[in-house]
Amino acid sequence: MNIDQYRAAFRACTLNISRHKPESIKTTLQRLADATSDDEQIDNYGSGELIEAFEREVAALLGKEAAVFMPSGTMAQPMALRIWADLARSDYVALHATSHLAMHEHNSYQVLWQLKGCELGEPHRVPLLADLQSAARNPLAAILLELPMREIGGQLPEWEELVKQSQWAREQGIKLHMDGARLWQCPAAYDKSLAEIAALFDSVYVSFYKDLGGIAGAMLLGSSDFIERTKVWKRRVGGNLYALFPYIIAAREGLAQHLDTLPQRRLQARWLAEQLNRLPGFNTWPAVPQTNMFRLRIRCQPEAFLTEGEQWMQQHKVALIPPPYRSDEDAIHCEINIGDAFDALSEDEWADWIKKFGQEMAGVLKA
Amino acid sequence: MNIDQYRAAFRACTLNISRHKPESIKTTLQRLADATSDDEQIDNYGSGELIEAFEREVAALLGKEAAVFMPSGTMAQPMALRIWADLARSDYVALHATSHLAMHEHNSYQVLWQLKGCELGEPHRVPLLADLQSAARNPLAAILLELPMREIGGQLPEWEELVKQSQWAREQGIKLHMDGARLWQCPAAYDKSLAEIAALFDSVYVSFYKDLGGIAGAMLLGSSDFIERTKVWKRRVGGNLYALFPYIIAAREGLAQHLDTLPQRRLQARWLAEQLNRLPGFNTWPAVPQTNMFRLRIRCQPEAFLTEGEQWMQQHKVALIPPPYRSDEDAIHCEINIGDAFDALSEDEWADWIKKFGQEMAGVLKA
Repeated sequence: MNIDQYRAAFRACTLNISRHKPESIKTTLQRLADATSDDEQIDNYGSGELIEAFEREVAALLGKEAAVFMPSGTMAQPMALRIWADLARSDYVALHATSHLAMHEHNSYQVLWQLKGCELGEPHRVPLLADLQSAARNPLAAILLELPMREIGGQLPEWEELVKQSQWAREQGIKLHMDGARLWQCPAAYDKSLAEIAALFDSVYVSFYKDLGGIAGAMLLGSSDFIERTKVWKRRVGGNLYALFPYIIAAREGLAQHLDTLPQRRLQARWLAEQLNRLPGFNTWPAVPQTNMFRLRIRCQPEAFLTEGEQWMQQHKVALIPPPYRSDEDAIHCEINIGDAFDALSEDEWADWIKKFGQEMAGVLKA
Repeated sequence: MNIDQYRAAFRACTLNISRHKPESIKTTLQRLADATSDDEQIDNYGSGELIEAFEREVAALLGKEAAVFMPSGTMAQPMALRIWADLARSDYVALHATSHLAMHEHNSYQVLWQLKGCELGEPHRVPLLADLQSAARNPLAAILLELPMREIGGQLPEWEELVKQSQWAREQGIKLHMDGARLWQCPAAYDKSLAEIAALFDSVYVSFYKDLGGIAGAMLLGSSDFIERTKVWKRRVGGNLYALFPYIIAAREGLAQHLDTLPQRRLQARWLAEQLNRLPGFNTWPAVPQTNMFRLRIRCQPEAFLTEGEQWMQQHKVALIPPPYRSDEDAIHCEINIGDAFDALSEDEWADWIKKFGQEMAGVLKA
């Protein structure tokens, strides 16, 4: 499989319909230097106005009492669950099969954080109240819900369903934790504020380098008591770095630059999905995106698609189809996430490229 | 205790005999942008030439097969011990009472990493071979030795003693791990290369933001097999960040800028200790520094010292005595670490300031 060459050709394109515009290290560092005022003081082991002001800013945005910035979500989320487990004196937590904790962290929540995972619903759909109730046959300390659910194409539960789940969990004394890595996409989908959505959860994790274009970094939010309890764990896990300022400044700038554009990105994602679904063998998941991301299944002979696709990108320097995250016998699967790279062309111009792609790649697509 | 005002006055000084020259965030980011070439590509989840080349550079410097960069030592060191524990099928590790793991990590090595600590030697001196042998009554997987030992004034074991300990541990099949947060200070003290020192250990942790003036960040070094085993743990602990480039570039620049100056800093530390020991009530620990750091005990009435010392710094804008890390009834304790701030004046000029300080502060010092 010539996936590496495909990836190289994808990266070398000057136009990309998905993701954020790439930026060199030098440009990023220069931009962050320019965005920093002369009197801003370095943060130190989680203290200082730079980090504390940003934590207050995001806490206010999400309507939570307090927040704590840390290097990664992989440390933030099991930490939140560990805190709820200690308070509940139960190590049981419920999470969906496609949760980041279950798929991408080498079972850290079990191996390192000593938690016990309980299944929540079915892999290909959002969890329903009945799924939460079924998981609660175990003495659950907490339930983790991801909004939107990345691995199933950015799907979201219905708002009323989510409200019911939150009410039920509260009645049961089970804490609700949000994996909000891409929470920023939700207000437009629900027509609710970030604070209205976050209010349904006891603890929230958000990320700054995905939709917001930061360098890395995450935040946990919740009550003052909850955030106070994160401090000892942040030190234990090695997340209380001597200084975090490059990540904080990049996150702050990313929030200011990108948050307000996300409703528009969602409309662009829906427009793009409609265009792509017209091509032979193309199916988006979901058929109509709920947020600014979706997954894409292309029926094809994968080897031939990658070879032809690489050549097409080399010729035109236009990237439409990201490197697949999975290949089957007769299809490839990709993830599309609309960012500011979309703005380089108008929808009409993108439509022309999509049409051209469909025509010139027709030989390798299966109708 | 007016320690906060003392600290503020200390920070506001334009000259400081210890530490590195402070740098604003804006200047740091600008300097790193300037130090980055246009074609350097962003690292991605631990991959890419930027991070891999720097890992190879430091591995070569320490004569180890491989290295892995990660955000903090607090995640790196228990990770190394966990790997040795898994291989030995024993959770017992020996560490000194003043080890960072025992003093500053809220017992993460026990609570999170599920290791069992065994005492090693006595708190106020370096461990001897007999101490290692005594700890080995437990089925030790690994022994952690810190070089130099920060909490006891940067002391080091004798070279021949260290060689004996390493040979003995190897004979016993017990892995030797180095806390080399300040390893950079050791070559001048031992008249040995970094590689000769590291060769005595199975795994080594180094830090980039202390002597080397980076932003944050650490590295683990060892055999290729050992480093391969860190990868799953680096992900589990949340240290495999989306991008680490600000830390990597700052570490790379810090290594290039500071490493060669450390032998000179050691001589400056010895000179300074000699000067300070002449002042009434001043005692350095050790009496003659072995590296470029030492601790300082000043017999005084602490409250009066802080008040007068604050005023003295406000008047002269010269900082000689850092904020104490501990105060007793009749003494304060400070840590001195010589960095590039020392270069602002000649030794003769510093000597004048020290003399002046001794004279003007005589009223609060106890002979």
